Amino acid sequence: MRALVLERKGVLAIRDIDLPDQLGPDDVRIKLHTVGICGSDVHYYLHGGAGPRIVNAPMVLGHEASGVIVEVGSNVEGLVAGDRVCMEPGVPDFKSKATKLGMYNVDPKVTFWATPPVHGCLTTTVVHPAAFTFRIPDNVSFGEAAMVEPFAVGMQAAVKARITPGDIAVVLGAGTIGMMIALAALAGGCSKVLITAVHQPKLDIAGRYTGVVPINIRNLDVVERVLEETGDWGADVVFEASGSPKAIASLVDLCCPGGTVVLVGVPTEHNSLDIAGAINKEIEIRTVFRYANVFDRALNLIASGQVDLKPLISETFAFDDAIKAFERAASGLPNDVKLQIRLAD
Amino acid sequence: MRALVLERKGVLAIRDIDLPDQLGPDDVRIKLHTVGICGSDVHYYLHGGAGPRIVNAPMVLGHEASGVIVEVGSNVEGLVAGDRVCMEPGVPDFKSKATKLGMYNVDPKVTFWATPPVHGCLTTTVVHPAAFTFRIPDNVSFGEAAMVEPFAVGMQAAVKARITPGDIAVVLGAGTIGMMIALAALAGGCSKVLITAVHQPKLDIAGRYTGVVPINIRNLDVVERVLEETGDWGADVVFEASGSPKAIASLVDLCCPGGTVVLVGVPTEHNSLDIAGAINKEIEIRTVFRYANVFDRALNLIASGQVDLKPLISETFAFDDAIKAFERAASGLPNDVKLQIRLAD
Amino acid sequence: MRALVLERKGVLAIRDIDLPDQLGPDDVRIKLHTVGICGSDVHYYLHGGAGPRIVNAPMVLGHEASGVIVEVGSNVEGLVAGDRVCMEPGVPDFKSKATKLGMYNVDPKVTFWATPPVHGCLTTTVVHPAAFTFRIPDNVSFGEAAMVEPFAVGMQAAVKARITPGDIAVVLGAGTIGMMIALAALAGGCSKVLITAVHQPKLDIAGRYTGVVPINIRNLDVVERVLEETGDWGADVVFEASGSPKAIASLVDLCCPGGTVVLVGVPTEHNSLDIAGAINKEIEIRTVFRYANVFDRALNLIASGQVDLKPLISETFAFDDAIKAFERAASGLPNDVKLQIRLAD
Amino acid sequence: MRALVLERKGVLAIRDIDLPDQLGPDDVRIKLHTVGICGSDVHYYLHGGAGPRIVNAPMVLGHEASGVIVEVGSNVEGLVAGDRVCMEPGVPDFKSKATKLGMYNVDPKVTFWATPPVHGCLTTTVVHPAAFTFRIPDNVSFGEAAMVEPFAVGMQAAVKARITPGDIAVVLGAGTIGMMIALAALAGGCSKVLITAVHQPKLDIAGRYTGVVPINIRNLDVVERVLEETGDWGADVVFEASGSPKAIASLVDLCCPGGTVVLVGVPTEHNSLDIAGAINKEIEIRTVFRYANVFDRALNLIASGQVDLKPLISETFAFDDAIKAFERAASGLPNDVKLQIRLAD
Repeated sequence: MRALVLERKGVLAIRDIDLPDQLGPDDVRIKLHTVGICGSDVHYYLHGGAGPRIVNAPMVLGHEASGVIVEVGSNVEGLVAGDRVCMEPGVPDFKSKATKLGMYNVDPKVTFWATPPVHGCLTTTVVHPAAFTFRIPDNVSFGEAAMVEPFAVGMQAAVKARITPGDIAVVLGAGTIGMMIALAALAGGCSKVLITAVHQPKLDIAGRYTGVVPINIRNLDVVERVLEETGDWGADVVFEASGSPKAIASLVDLCCPGGTVVLVGVPTEHNSLDIAGAINKEIEIRTVFRYANVFDRALNLIASGQVDLKPLISETFAFDDAIKAFERAASGLPNDVKLQIRLAD
Repeated sequence: MRALVLERKGVLAIRDIDLPDQLGPDDVRIKLHTVGICGSDVHYYLHGGAGPRIVNAPMVLGHEASGVIVEVGSNVEGLVAGDRVCMEPGVPDFKSKATKLGMYNVDPKVTFWATPPVHGCLTTTVVHPAAFTFRIPDNVSFGEAAMVEPFAVGMQAAVKARITPGDIAVVLGAGTIGMMIALAALAGGCSKVLITAVHQPKLDIAGRYTGVVPINIRNLDVVERVLEETGDWGADVVFEASGSPKAIASLVDLCCPGGTVVLVGVPTEHNSLDIAGAINKEIEIRTVFRYANVFDRALNLIASGQVDLKPLISETFAFDDAIKAFERAASGLPNDVKLQIRLAD
Repeated sequence: MRALVLERKGVLAIRDIDLPDQLGPDDVRIKLHTVGICGSDVHYYLHGGAGPRIVNAPMVLGHEASGVIVEVGSNVEGLVAGDRVCMEPGVPDFKSKATKLGMYNVDPKVTFWATPPVHGCLTTTVVHPAAFTFRIPDNVSFGEAAMVEPFAVGMQAAVKARITPGDIAVVLGAGTIGMMIALAALAGGCSKVLITAVHQPKLDIAGRYTGVVPINIRNLDVVERVLEETGDWGADVVFEASGSPKAIASLVDLCCPGGTVVLVGVPTEHNSLDIAGAINKEIEIRTVFRYANVFDRALNLIASGQVDLKPLISETFAFDDAIKAFERAASGLPNDVKLQIRLAD
Repeated sequence: MRALVLERKGVLAIRDIDLPDQLGPDDVRIKLHTVGICGSDVHYYLHGGAGPRIVNAPMVLGHEASGVIVEVGSNVEGLVAGDRVCMEPGVPDFKSKATKLGMYNVDPKVTFWATPPVHGCLTTTVVHPAAFTFRIPDNVSFGEAAMVEPFAVGMQAAVKARITPGDIAVVLGAGTIGMMIALAALAGGCSKVLITAVHQPKLDIAGRYTGVVPINIRNLDVVERVLEETGDWGADVVFEASGSPKAIASLVDLCCPGGTVVLVGVPTEHNSLDIAGAINKEIEIRTVFRYANVFDRALNLIASGQVDLKPLISETFAFDDAIKAFERAASGLPNDVKLQIRLAD
């Protein structure tokens, strides 16, 4: 099977590789069409690992994917060969305690594409559980469908925030995930989302959406601005999508009494969440680990026109240029939000 | 004080009337600008009462109002003379158990404008608690601001539904309240709202909004259509806004397993909610009585452009034509959604 | 395999019968120890069916069971031969939408012991998914463990009620399920549970528990009594466990403003829930269909001493007397709460 | 009015002092009976302030109080002279945004007894809003009623935890508040509460309650023990009641995937909550600031026998010995949980 293989830290190859391809009764076989490049793919490429997860053997990259079903297992209902689909890349033990509780994303046994030692999907075909394969509405393109995976993180953040319609939110960080959160929060009930960053190009892209207010924190005091926008009350919901210690330190001041903080960005260094301040305002702090039960909801919002992800697809590469695509992603151009690789026509 | 007075069933007059006008320390005095006509105003006009509430003495009508503050009480903070405002018409006992619990709308002591024996606000000025008076953003007109009250019912329904972002909803009934619910549900996180009625003109108006799917139940089986739109699963949320026994009987079939029904329309006759069916799907049924804590959220959604109520203001009358406006409202023209009366320039 | 077989309506036999007994990799094989008799078992015995579920072929009865593991499948972790266990009798499609959402009890594909055409567990051994088999703490007897299944319905009702600690509850109906709800509601946070019935013996049994207030509705007006106990506010939670139209008609009057009704009893006749009244108090109505994710919680409460089910086991029969046990159950003695059958020593 | 006055840091006096005593229409006048000594009272005594709150003028101490109504304001309903009552010591602006939302405890304008510059209630009579004055059931003593205030903090923690019946909880810290949380968590639905401390006497007192498992962390690894008790899953709820950095650092390891942490203890030093770990398990972190809407619930639980606070009243002093009582409290005897002062017979 032809695939984009991370041979080891810093070394990519497009080559044939043996991959498991046995179709179980509850599985479908999918011919890949479009796969997006995630920050984590780039991280594995550049650093050969992420925290405790080390790339010790050649690994196929990619987990943001859409494609076409070519074969279905004997038990599969509701999906047939020819269906255009996108795939949820993390598969739990279906009989685990976490799955029974409806939070399969935190099942300790989840296997996730392109997370060592599990191969990703930047290859010709994959076998995947039908339960994690979603038909794409006709008016949604393969490119948009491959955006559902990163958007799902934003959706999970919006779900966890338990937004009350009309809430005012702040999103700290305007990277890809920050933008996904901003769009999901607006579609999920917020009246307005203030998004912060130090780099203007990303803020300009985010600011084109109705309801998004970009704030360059080089020039403006966010807390002051948020109090202004909220009658000195504070934001109903504050999403942390930067992992930056400075952002984490500001969460309590941005948030209203009884309000909600949602932590999405994983801090790499030591952090200093203001616990005493959080107690004083009786703030709730929720966290997001990937997502559960949001792929179909994300597709509904895109198909109905409530969410438009197309402007965030910065460029699409042919599979033969996949290594070039990764190099571009690694270079972090200021206007790039999402780069994608097309594997089929 | 000049006012539109319901003298008794069927008899309206524009005349002077003595109204309480003492300004307490926590009150503001407001010069009325625009007042909408509600179905309940028309009901009192035509029937002289509603259920146990009988009009036994002349009563000023109107409770959907915007205006300008002309005086503030000694304790009032955050509002000043000259502020453009809209008003929440139901005032609870602020020290009651219900208020302390955050659900002041169900406080048994609530007094509500134009609900006998309490006068409404179709008059020159009113005195009102500052706590129930909300400043209007600059880009929101007096007419839109007077729409906040009926929209608040839709907001309360959307809040009570605890929408998960991307939910698919059904609204049964395309009267004013049905439309308000549809718009609030979309702004509040739904991906799509199917709205049903037997009269096409209202459906045509509703159908102009992105995400609203009008269904004329003369021609179509709603249950079948909803199952089609939801992969045979059923709607996540079903809002009942018609009070019709037939609609109430269909709620369980429309709703998905573990889904939510929100009852807004008050049935006048006997009803037959399918309890056994609801149990079989473990459906939750929530109810809406007016609203609490949604006026500021409604204003935020209107100001940010997430909700556009302007197309629903069908016509605006001068105060001198207020009786004509009520006659028009009573005649129920198929294209009329909201009629308003302007009391000032 | 020796089993208690319902041959057809009214005819029971203890005899050998062929039952599926292939052990899958995720299954365990259990030697049955104690099985309780449920009202539904008796209903199938007396009536040959329940609603749409008709007994068309000989069927083994019983679904309230405890036993000892005798064999485990190749994938099973955390359970070994010799473990004392009790079993959750409804098995969903583990990859269904409902299961992924954490509400596997409403999965349309659930199969449930002793629900035609699925055999029950009044037999020597059964094969069951390990995921629905729970180890019994040492201080919990097989008899108590076989009570976990009916208690689980009470637990689900208590979970669905989202009890706030200190809530005052009413349970309408003092049958087995009514008692289970009362105990689960107390253990689940209620300060006091008023339970109602027309038969005194069951009320006497319930009234022996601290916190349970029995009310014989032949002698007392429940609404009046509840208002007395709650300072004229109404109960925070009202559980309906009788299915009686009269009880259903009283729900709104018993419930406080903004309170919660939980429907457990399935009405057989037409009902008349007071929708207008429910709206007026903004009451939420939740429903209970079996249970999900409560077996381990139930075992924890029993083991820790918070819940004592032993007084509700009225008599235990040898397997050879199983038909006698069913006849006794069918006769409905006033002091019988739960009858059990012992299949092993 | 005779009162216990904190003249300045370290100096107490029993003397006459002028206190506001005008009875408003919504107020009651209460003759004090019993007042408990809180850690914060002792802190003001020893340190002359707490964080930003400095004692700059003589201040009456005490806020845990019960007494008898001697006079009621003209609007007061439901309370009469002679009623035995206990009082909620924090009074918000009743018309504030926070109050309307049902979370009056976080209203920035709350005034709270014995929090500078507001006087406490260790005096002969106080005037207090009827809305924050609660009638004591006949079977509850004045001493127990004066315990409702500290127990209310435990109640708020139990409410915020949104306990699912049968949850297993851990409470870090076995001081007065830790014990209150443990009892409220058990009454509020937990099956078992593991409570930790380094001092054995407090653990012994806590361990006398059914369902409480004391753990001396000098001898035992809590995380290991909690994993043992929970089948390697972790606790459903972890309450932090110590403010200790070491305890805060252990929260994530103690908590199950998708579980809940409730922060009650205010850390004085820098803390290091493990945000990355919390994200990895998708843990929710809630916080407790005093309490709202729990006094009546607490009284219900005490009156019904679900909660017994009597063993925690270590000694009761006559008012003339009030200074001696404070010295004893300041000395922190290992077996003292709560010391109270009796002002009337």
